[in-house]
Amino acid sequence: VRPIVTADILAVGSELLTPHRVDTNSLFLTGRLNDLGIAVRMKSAIRDNPRELTAALTNALSNADLIVTTGGLGPTADDLTREAVADLLGLELVERPDVLAVIQERFARRGAAMPAINRRQAMAPEGAIVLPNPNGTAPGLLLEQGDRMVVLLPGPPREMQPMFDGWVVPRLADRTRGRRLHRRVLKVTGRSESQVEEVAEPIYAAAGTAETPVETTILASPGQIELHLSSAGDDGQTIGRVLDEAVARLAEALGDVVFSVDGRSIEEVVGDLLHRRGWRVAVAESCTGGALMARLTDVPGASAWVLGGVVAYANEVKIAELGVPAGLIERHGAVSEETAGAMAEGVRARLHAEIGVSITGIAGPGGGSPEKPVGTVVVAVTTGAGTSVRRFWFPGEREVVRRFSAMAALDMLRRALSTS
Amino acid sequence: VRPIVTADILAVGSELLTPHRVDTNSLFLTGRLNDLGIAVRMKSAIRDNPRELTAALTNALSNADLIVTTGGLGPTADDLTREAVADLLGLELVERPDVLAVIQERFARRGAAMPAINRRQAMAPEGAIVLPNPNGTAPGLLLEQGDRMVVLLPGPPREMQPMFDGWVVPRLADRTRGRRLHRRVLKVTGRSESQVEEVAEPIYAAAGTAETPVETTILASPGQIELHLSSAGDDGQTIGRVLDEAVARLAEALGDVVFSVDGRSIEEVVGDLLHRRGWRVAVAESCTGGALMARLTDVPGASAWVLGGVVAYANEVKIAELGVPAGLIERHGAVSEETAGAMAEGVRARLHAEIGVSITGIAGPGGGSPEKPVGTVVVAVTTGAGTSVRRFWFPGEREVVRRFSAMAALDMLRRALSTS
Repeated sequence: VRPIVTADILAVGSELLTPHRVDTNSLFLTGRLNDLGIAVRMKSAIRDNPRELTAALTNALSNADLIVTTGGLGPTADDLTREAVADLLGLELVERPDVLAVIQERFARRGAAMPAINRRQAMAPEGAIVLPNPNGTAPGLLLEQGDRMVVLLPGPPREMQPMFDGWVVPRLADRTRGRRLHRRVLKVTGRSESQVEEVAEPIYAAAGTAETPVETTILASPGQIELHLSSAGDDGQTIGRVLDEAVARLAEALGDVVFSVDGRSIEEVVGDLLHRRGWRVAVAESCTGGALMARLTDVPGASAWVLGGVVAYANEVKIAELGVPAGLIERHGAVSEETAGAMAEGVRARLHAEIGVSITGIAGPGGGSPEKPVGTVVVAVTTGAGTSVRRFWFPGEREVVRRFSAMAALDMLRRALSTS
Repeated sequence: VRPIVTADILAVGSELLTPHRVDTNSLFLTGRLNDLGIAVRMKSAIRDNPRELTAALTNALSNADLIVTTGGLGPTADDLTREAVADLLGLELVERPDVLAVIQERFARRGAAMPAINRRQAMAPEGAIVLPNPNGTAPGLLLEQGDRMVVLLPGPPREMQPMFDGWVVPRLADRTRGRRLHRRVLKVTGRSESQVEEVAEPIYAAAGTAETPVETTILASPGQIELHLSSAGDDGQTIGRVLDEAVARLAEALGDVVFSVDGRSIEEVVGDLLHRRGWRVAVAESCTGGALMARLTDVPGASAWVLGGVVAYANEVKIAELGVPAGLIERHGAVSEETAGAMAEGVRARLHAEIGVSITGIAGPGGGSPEKPVGTVVVAVTTGAGTSVRRFWFPGEREVVRRFSAMAALDMLRRALSTS
């Protein structure tokens, strides 16, 4: 049989065609399939409608080597995936006594009799491999016909994911002849997407056409740019070396704006730097209103290196709780290098921390002025050895300004901890 | 011509078939189409591949009244949507001098000559209506053939959204004969999805089969359940009355766990309650690490009712900054009713606030014990008139426990502000 190189993903369920639901299953599946060197050709969400389901399956079957469906395996009349696939492949649905026994036992364990409608979930197209579901009543199904494979999975992620990893991945690995996708991620802060691209493009363009080609994708979010490098093949050692070389070249060209080449987030990098020194950080925030602290403490174990902080939204709190002199705020304003420095020093002293960080700014929509427009943010970091202060201007809405600000503060912490 | 009642959405772009990207355009479009009483039948993401694009368009054209595509209108060789649609509909692509002039002027304004490749963006199938794009170079296209409508939109949301609202919605409104979707949202906290369903199901089941049927969807997130009620038709007054009656019945049956029937978030509800009293809140957080403050200050204008707070991650900060007696923590533990109460009272007194709130708990993964397992959280709210304290146990991972905790604290604030 031919190796499997392309897949279509079909999410079945009317709730996925509302304005509120995203099909996240397809992201998980795409990641796993890519890891096996399989490209996703198309993904669709369709309603619980037999005619539409059949049309979508027909289109998928005529093109992709592999079709993965999620949803529509429940016990109700709405759940039609089993029937539609059997029909299209010209297979008869037969009741599987082994599957029926498992479902009945599942209900018995909870002291209940199996409702009659659940009997449908024991039906499988002839020749199908049944995939056990320890987390629900709907078993999965796997069919191989000639070169093609069709996999039917339940919709709930906690049922679908272990089933895919436990039963489908090993089966697919047999059909990909050792081919795997290998990847590396470089994370950058303090540069825009186009600035990163300008420096990185010549390097990844060359890597893209080398003997072992490396594919590069750029992902941007407020304050952070990621370069995803990947290469597929069966010679893992060579590919690993080629990827590491590309990472090294990019890291050298981009310089110290690269904060991670090993998958860690910036809050993990900062946490590790603090942990290594045995230091603890104290935080004073104004416009970010707790968002910086929330990120620092997002990392499990953060209590070892985060002491705490003060959210000084009102000026009176900056004065009373952080010891910022009232006259300083009057003279320079709450959003100023002077106030930011005093906030960082105040919180460091009050909480007896080795390092203090502060953010003060105007997140908007109100509060801007011609000299200090919305998006003006000042960040300060202070240690016993000295204080560094920077003024930024971040474009965008309130939430975006807040995300940029927290990121800038994390990066200034990283730099202070790397050098001082 | 027939009215438009169903639509297919097609997102074009290879980047949408990676594990990292979600097609958010389709959520915006689904919301807008539903508002016009148009149901989305299917949505797909496809690669920049002419054969696959044609197959997907063919499938859509044979079924839906309306097809909306996003992406693939750029100037490069990868951008194929224009050509594929013209081809399928048997229309010739012609250069539109008016469109070309607009694109050239756009470049001229930035002092640049139009690159030759952008000339492609001035091509349109004969008979197409060109949709202006003030935010980019790619104009949209709208084609009507018999009963069917095909709309091609650019991919970037800031180009796509104003184009859809400004040019496509009015055109669609002509084709829906006054039919509109009307909706209401009820928001609940402090109840699980199944608890809400048990109470609400008889009411929404009856509403679903009434003369003017109301459709109900339940959406659950940590600490919050939403009931979305909707009904489509051309008699807005009757539908509005029917929806309001259903909302009133549900709100009465569910009681005071309903915190919003007008779309407001709980932080907006709390902010409005504080604002109305002229009160200001002070916050003391431990395990949530700033997440409660971040939510309270997410609301524009929050500086009027949020004074600030202390994130007391370490016990020494609880003692020094919040005035919690060291002996109290020793006797009862940092996660206890006593400590939570002292934290809330301490922050209220220190910041001179009218109301204080505190959270202390074990978010995990470490730190649990048999008496206080991971997920144990205590919340306190205090005013001059008294203090209320509650202990919770929230299931789930660190991030989920933190979200549940912030939600519980916001709800206790709401209750204290509504009654005291």
